[in-house]
Amino acid sequence: MNDSGKLMHINLFIFGCGHHRAAWRHPMSSVERLGDIAYYEELAQTAERGKLDAVFFADGQSADNVADGPRWFLEPLTALAAMSRATRHIGLISTVSSTFYTPFHAARLVASLDHISRGRMGWNVVTSMFDAEARNHNFDAMPDHAWRYARAEEFVDTVLRLWDSWTDDALELDRKGVYARSDKVHAIHHKGEHFRVDGPLTVPRPPQGHPVLFQAGASEQGRDLAARRAEAIYAVAYDLAAAQEYYCDIKARVRAAGRRDPVPIMPGLVTYIGSTQDEARAKQRELDELLPAPDALRQLSMYIGRDCTCWDLDAPVPALMPLEEFVGPKGRYATVLRIIETEKPTLRQLLGRLAAGGGHCTMIGTPETIADEMERWWRNEAADGFNLMPPSLPGGIEDFVDQVVPLLQKRGLFRRDYETTSLREHLGLTRPSAN
Amino acid sequence: MNDSGKLMHINLFIFGCGHHRAAWRHPMSSVERLGDIAYYEELAQTAERGKLDAVFFADGQSADNVADGPRWFLEPLTALAAMSRATRHIGLISTVSSTFYTPFHAARLVASLDHISRGRMGWNVVTSMFDAEARNHNFDAMPDHAWRYARAEEFVDTVLRLWDSWTDDALELDRKGVYARSDKVHAIHHKGEHFRVDGPLTVPRPPQGHPVLFQAGASEQGRDLAARRAEAIYAVAYDLAAAQEYYCDIKARVRAAGRRDPVPIMPGLVTYIGSTQDEARAKQRELDELLPAPDALRQLSMYIGRDCTCWDLDAPVPALMPLEEFVGPKGRYATVLRIIETEKPTLRQLLGRLAAGGGHCTMIGTPETIADEMERWWRNEAADGFNLMPPSLPGGIEDFVDQVVPLLQKRGLFRRDYETTSLREHLGLTRPSAN
Repeated sequence: MNDSGKLMHINLFIFGCGHHRAAWRHPMSSVERLGDIAYYEELAQTAERGKLDAVFFADGQSADNVADGPRWFLEPLTALAAMSRATRHIGLISTVSSTFYTPFHAARLVASLDHISRGRMGWNVVTSMFDAEARNHNFDAMPDHAWRYARAEEFVDTVLRLWDSWTDDALELDRKGVYARSDKVHAIHHKGEHFRVDGPLTVPRPPQGHPVLFQAGASEQGRDLAARRAEAIYAVAYDLAAAQEYYCDIKARVRAAGRRDPVPIMPGLVTYIGSTQDEARAKQRELDELLPAPDALRQLSMYIGRDCTCWDLDAPVPALMPLEEFVGPKGRYATVLRIIETEKPTLRQLLGRLAAGGGHCTMIGTPETIADEMERWWRNEAADGFNLMPPSLPGGIEDFVDQVVPLLQKRGLFRRDYETTSLREHLGLTRPSAN
Repeated sequence: MNDSGKLMHINLFIFGCGHHRAAWRHPMSSVERLGDIAYYEELAQTAERGKLDAVFFADGQSADNVADGPRWFLEPLTALAAMSRATRHIGLISTVSSTFYTPFHAARLVASLDHISRGRMGWNVVTSMFDAEARNHNFDAMPDHAWRYARAEEFVDTVLRLWDSWTDDALELDRKGVYARSDKVHAIHHKGEHFRVDGPLTVPRPPQGHPVLFQAGASEQGRDLAARRAEAIYAVAYDLAAAQEYYCDIKARVRAAGRRDPVPIMPGLVTYIGSTQDEARAKQRELDELLPAPDALRQLSMYIGRDCTCWDLDAPVPALMPLEEFVGPKGRYATVLRIIETEKPTLRQLLGRLAAGGGHCTMIGTPETIADEMERWWRNEAADGFNLMPPSLPGGIEDFVDQVVPLLQKRGLFRRDYETTSLREHLGLTRPSAN
């Protein structure tokens, strides 16, 4: 299978010491290195050794509960700039908040990174969610969901137009003539609800034309924006059925929007890998046992928008308000509801379930069973690939690259080497021209 | 002389193919490499070979006259992140506009770079100046000078408080206890005229405490802000007398503000270096002759806020409005007035004078005479060092590092090797603690 559009796509979602909230407490964790760029460079190199499509950075604009564990440290755009010089093939995706940046800053930073990385950048547009973040950027509270999504749509359109403000062939570099052709560098004169941006950008057109636009969205507006604009989608799916529902819905919306792009959908995936099922389970238990209950309760309170820190750990979880009435991020809340509904867990069991990856799909087993399960998702219209969320780093990605990737390669599901140079090409997407 | 406070400080101001507007037209220019991060890494490595204090990036938020020559390409913060990994000692200074960024973004980006570079970052605060820049960031025109400086002052104060929002010893990293001590990570609850920022920052305290604050300002408000807040100053000085006036004025203002910091003042310096005076002059003439008059006239029109593209090239420059009435950037305008007053040039002669560095001090000669002149400025309260603006790159900095630096070292005026690790230490500045 040489058609990269027919291969599985796999990103590494880099997050601190790993996606399990207690990972930093493990004796082998790299918590001392979270401010050391070499740590992230090594993670990217491991992912590149595994021929992964990209590394992915989430981002947030507020620090809270700093006692509980690391959350943010290095800012993603600056970290990825350094990481791009320690790697040669792998894509580099940064989260960018459309609520707090201006489109001109975002377009410029990401375009610059696309030049620096020679065509390997992606940007994951988020609208941000917490009041604490808004209060760091001149708002008194987070603007409402509808406002944020309207702004996000205008933001994305404006960024794309700025990237097109220099045509691909604008640079003439004629020492006896012009540096760039004035008729190929255009103002965009955008005046919308949220922004005034005259353009052109200060940066010539990025190597990829448009650095690849990722998006995740579970709400109605989020799905719509994803279907209309996203080139690849980072999804949250608790199980195969949820993934299929999301996959089917988004692909239908993409078609309805008249788009022919493949728009790969990549759910987050937490893996515990062992040489036996028991060993894998033991790895999970070891991390779960490092998790102090108060931390986990605070996290859950945040997810469900309700203080649960005084609830009984060993009693069943009380009934929560229906999804329609919940005003926070819908995706994670739906997952909590789903776990409660399908597993009837005690509060303690629910915390264990949520401690790593906040309710993303979790696969626990041998490399063989995990490859089986990934293949099953991939073959059954649940996923075009995965956004790996190893519960602990760097161990979790080393295990995956050394043990699971070779199986996927042997089955012809994943590339044996990079045959393309840009992230856009890795993902089987065409390059938009601007001339 | 081991006391670095007593040594000359030298930065390399990196700009495209060099500071002469026609440098890109030279057959040997690197104009094809302006989007290639390796070009900038090599420049930084050359500067580091010369034991320079730092490399410095200007920045602007609009693209215009793209035919005339390169102006901006890579965004400075992302470029410097990559360059920090190709160097080990040299400082890295990025321009940051207080008019267009939010203080939280700026604090976060620069703090992250200070971690990535292990304590080598500086930030050069500018208020930006052109309507075209404002119109890329939601303004209809550039806000007035007073508003911009008031915002800049609040911006700087807020950034500094965000950097102090984690104490130096906040990170506990206690696997059986807390990651960070809640009592050492503080909200700042800033509510001012221009910003609301609750804090704390998402990034633990930068290695330098505060990445070094550079500032340039020629106007009354600019000088005041520099005197109150800057830790090092990038100045524009046409000749020794102008440099001394500025130096004396700023040092007096610094003392009046009750500060004891050394606040090194570093004027921009354009050098043409030859093995004889004639050879140096010939290098200048060679670049001057590459400059098309229409480009130069457009640049001058921008400097003087008046269309001079139809003036007679070989007639004396007409009288210009007095400095007090001019509403644009004062420093450059004053230089134009000064050249006209002291040299009574024709328009063509004025253009030649301004083509490189826009009226900064220009030293033309042998390595020996240039070292003499630099020493004279340094010994006569005109400069604590220089911000090198080579007319062409990479040649201009290679010449300087190979031919002028050894002379300065022999005279005991410049370091023979790095004896300090942070930019702050290179510049002889103390580290502000936060506990």
